[in-house]
Amino acid sequence: MSFVAVPQGSDFPIENLPYGVFSTAANPTARIGVAIGEKILDLSALVSFYPENVRNALQATVLNDLMSLGCDAWAEVRRITKELLLEGSPLHKDAALQARALVAQSDAKMHLPANIGDYTDFYSSIHHATNVGVMFRGKENALMPNWKHLPVGYHGRASSVVVSGTPIRRPYGQTLPVDGADPAFGPCRLFDFELEMAFFVGGPPTELGQRVSVRDAAKRVFGFVLMNDWSARDIQKWEYVPLGPFTAKNLGTSISPWIVPVAALEPFLVDNFPQDPKPFPYLQHEQKFNFDIKLEVDIKPKDTGVATTVCRSNYRNLYWTALQQIAHHTVTGCNLKPGDLMASGTISGDASDSFGSMLELSWKGTKPVPLGGGESRKFLQDNDEVVIRGYCSADGLRIGFGSCVGVVLPATPFE
Amino acid sequence: MSFVAVPQGSDFPIENLPYGVFSTAANPTARIGVAIGEKILDLSALVSFYPENVRNALQATVLNDLMSLGCDAWAEVRRITKELLLEGSPLHKDAALQARALVAQSDAKMHLPANIGDYTDFYSSIHHATNVGVMFRGKENALMPNWKHLPVGYHGRASSVVVSGTPIRRPYGQTLPVDGADPAFGPCRLFDFELEMAFFVGGPPTELGQRVSVRDAAKRVFGFVLMNDWSARDIQKWEYVPLGPFTAKNLGTSISPWIVPVAALEPFLVDNFPQDPKPFPYLQHEQKFNFDIKLEVDIKPKDTGVATTVCRSNYRNLYWTALQQIAHHTVTGCNLKPGDLMASGTISGDASDSFGSMLELSWKGTKPVPLGGGESRKFLQDNDEVVIRGYCSADGLRIGFGSCVGVVLPATPFE
Repeated sequence: MSFVAVPQGSDFPIENLPYGVFSTAANPTARIGVAIGEKILDLSALVSFYPENVRNALQATVLNDLMSLGCDAWAEVRRITKELLLEGSPLHKDAALQARALVAQSDAKMHLPANIGDYTDFYSSIHHATNVGVMFRGKENALMPNWKHLPVGYHGRASSVVVSGTPIRRPYGQTLPVDGADPAFGPCRLFDFELEMAFFVGGPPTELGQRVSVRDAAKRVFGFVLMNDWSARDIQKWEYVPLGPFTAKNLGTSISPWIVPVAALEPFLVDNFPQDPKPFPYLQHEQKFNFDIKLEVDIKPKDTGVATTVCRSNYRNLYWTALQQIAHHTVTGCNLKPGDLMASGTISGDASDSFGSMLELSWKGTKPVPLGGGESRKFLQDNDEVVIRGYCSADGLRIGFGSCVGVVLPATPFE
Repeated sequence: MSFVAVPQGSDFPIENLPYGVFSTAANPTARIGVAIGEKILDLSALVSFYPENVRNALQATVLNDLMSLGCDAWAEVRRITKELLLEGSPLHKDAALQARALVAQSDAKMHLPANIGDYTDFYSSIHHATNVGVMFRGKENALMPNWKHLPVGYHGRASSVVVSGTPIRRPYGQTLPVDGADPAFGPCRLFDFELEMAFFVGGPPTELGQRVSVRDAAKRVFGFVLMNDWSARDIQKWEYVPLGPFTAKNLGTSISPWIVPVAALEPFLVDNFPQDPKPFPYLQHEQKFNFDIKLEVDIKPKDTGVATTVCRSNYRNLYWTALQQIAHHTVTGCNLKPGDLMASGTISGDASDSFGSMLELSWKGTKPVPLGGGESRKFLQDNDEVVIRGYCSADGLRIGFGSCVGVVLPATPFE
């Protein structure tokens, strides 16, 4: 039990200990912290408690160095952090040190937790891929022929990944309002969220040409965050052939600030999604690497101020595991760097209230989604706030991810 | 005229002054240099000649800081560098300083010139896009409907961009040898080069949500390099639907080590490619930003050692300019960072010996391409060396890019 108070229902009990990067008005230097209850434990103020080989990494302004040290170092840092937070610890007994090392989350500004070298977005939810396929190609050809053979994914834009709380501006762009007619240019009309989760890659950088086997891949997963992969659907539809989504996605991708370590998720391991046909051996693993993580999306229009939960999904809906994603990503020799970010793709369940995007919830804009306060939405409107939450919960233990929040700003007109 | 000898036909006269990052056996620290004749001028040894605001940037191990300073600083650094290299300069009169600051290119190891935050690959050659379209969709539907309305592009993998000379390993991956049958797993059979050029983005970072107008885009182009975007065609064909190329491309992308500044290319400005239909206003510019850059690709099999030029193309074949590429990339608000790399896509001309890939030169493997020494190729074989060269030449002035070289290593079997 921690001497730091953890309120009932908190996302951040001592069993969680997620990593983030924060600063305060009193100390504007970005530094590494661990969330506990409503506090942040400032690891930069406590480095002397940790072994020498991790001290530099804990004093950095981003988590990349800690990520690079690998899973043995992560386990050791986690063990020591937990001990420091227990009743009777040296920290518990030192009020002056506590005053320096414990910061109220409400006083902290959160930053991107890592320098993201490359950001990859997969497409690993079978319900999402099927929904989109049915909408655009019909039931018979819903899933592309490759979909069950490999975890389809693409390279996203790393520079435009931002931390929760950053407002996202509705973009201008090209669209094709009428098939076969001329394209139009103007503000995006079909602005959407995508409910995703993502993991940060850890371990030392790999060499170009070096594959990471599905057996070694677990060592490469530092931890998970929530993600909102904002999407301009009308722009996407016009631009994506044949090289994939581009400007429809690089307008901003939000992540939650706290990275939940895999170790904290172990009590919530569940069976991997059944795969038929069996994939190629380089994608086969027995190890469970699927998690029961409840996911929710709220929309809160500014006018009403009423938040409505429009989606209840679960990470376990993913067909492909993170281990398979890593093995496939590197099968042709792509090198990895600590701090790379790999996202799941939109996580939809099979129920119609579990779809992870407005595109699916409103079924391409044909079914308005009711909101509280007499509102409804087909897609996002200006000043709508979107809140993604995620948590694991069983037997009185709750491991949460906090939230990933963003508000849609009106488009900036062209001069 | 420079006091440093510039042999006839050199790529690097005093009118060029491209930037690179190098090290030597005697001094293994990576540092910034400028190519002149067969030498490198080590700017880190000469910082006292430059204004204070650029000195830190010139002492860095990559060019990102210099890139971030913007085009006025680039012009000033270029002016001073040129003066230092003229006969009668303080450097000319100081033999000891010359001994420290002039390094033989043959003694230097070249490095990646920048930390590449994000790498984007466009698809801007109309001949290439048409060729690929004819092969896969027939003459009637060769160009996708969006192609003439926007510079189609996609996000590539930044981590796997490597400097010329790095060997590239033939990958394993999934392919679909027979349409409708089961996929196969094994070494890539259709391994290819792509003749491209790319530019590095400069200027201070932009904010998310900020567009870079086509009028301001020229200030964002630091300089150009040659690129070989190695491609596993059989893997690409199976994986790319619907999100674009992924593992078929992230196995390695080679760039030439010397970044030729836009100022050095100005004598070779030519009319922009005629565009019909006229694009949307955000893509329109009067300013010439097309260049007469001759491009060649050699293949040299290890067995014969005979190099054959299989492609003679030209940068001027690009339909979309770099300014349009930047304006489109940022139209939805994508933020740029100095050191971002934006590539042209395969640069094919209209003649059949000007196609920039084996896919096109061998027309999907139906027409073997003859090589010297009795060899021929449909696609690349193991131990083939691919050499891309580029240069501008007119009225006795030659501005060259050096070369972008890579050899194909045999695939590493799976254990």
